Amino acid sequence: MSAADRFRAAVEAGDFDAGVALLADDVVFRSPVVHKPYQGREVVGALLGAVSQIFEDFRYDRQIGAPGAADHALVFRTRVGDREIEGCDFIHENEDGLIDEFVVMVRPMTGANALADAMRAHFEGSVPTP
Amino acid sequence: MSAADRFRAAVEAGDFDAGVALLADDVVFRSPVVHKPYQGREVVGALLGAVSQIFEDFRYDRQIGAPGAADHALVFRTRVGDREIEGCDFIHENEDGLIDEFVVMVRPMTGANALADAMRAHFEGSVPTP
Repeated sequence: MSAADRFRAAVEAGDFDAGVALLADDVVFRSPVVHKPYQGREVVGALLGAVSQIFEDFRYDRQIGAPGAADHALVFRTRVGDREIEGCDFIHENEDGLIDEFVVMVRPMTGANALADAMRAHFEGSVPTP
Repeated sequence: MSAADRFRAAVEAGDFDAGVALLADDVVFRSPVVHKPYQGREVVGALLGAVSQIFEDFRYDRQIGAPGAADHALVFRTRVGDREIEGCDFIHENEDGLIDEFVVMVRPMTGANALADAMRAHFEGSVPTP
C-alpha cells in the first residue's frame, strides 16, 4: 500500500493525525498559492490542518500512479464558499514509506483566489511563511 | 504506448500537429485559469497552440500513471516571463486511444496570473470563451 493510499485513507476516515504521521520529518511542501516551498512536518501539518477546515465537500475522485511507484497523484474536488475547486495532491514517498514531497495544485483561478483568501482569514492574516 | 506517452513525445519533438492529432473530436479541456470547460478539437488545439508559444523553457519532469491505465499525469516545469511555473497535464484517453479529457493545473498563483495575462495578450484581449 503506497503512502498515497494510506494518506487518502486517513483523509477519508477524517483521521488527520494519521495523515500527518505519514509525513517525513523533512517533508517539502509546495503550495498551490505561494512559490517558495515549506519544509518540515510541523509547518506542513499546520497548513494541511488549515486546508482540511477550509475545504468543504472534499472528495478524492481519481488516483493516478503505478503500483510500487514513488509518485502518485490524487485528484480531488472540493469547494471554498461558492467557488468550486478541482485539485491534485502529488505525493512522493521515500524509501521508508514516508511522504517526503507533497505538492498541491488547484484550478481554476477563482478557486485558488478563494483558497488564498480563506487561508489568510484562518491564520488571521499571518499565514506561515516558508 | 499511452496517449499521454504519445502526446509527450509530440511536445518534446516540437511536433504540434502530432499533439493535436491525438485529441478526440469532442475532447473536453479544463484550463488552469477559467472554470468552464472548453470542448472540441479546434478550440482546444488553438488554446494549446497559444500556450506552446507562451511557455518558455518548457520540460516534462515526471510522468505518473500505471501501464494500460486511462489516466496519466505529466508534471512539467516552465516559465512565463520571469515567473516560474510548475504544472501538470492530466490526460485521459478513450477506447480508441485518443485524448477525450485534458486538464491542466499550475502553481503558484503568480505563475497562473502571468499565464492568464499572457493568454489575454496573445489573443489580443479576446481569449476564446468556453
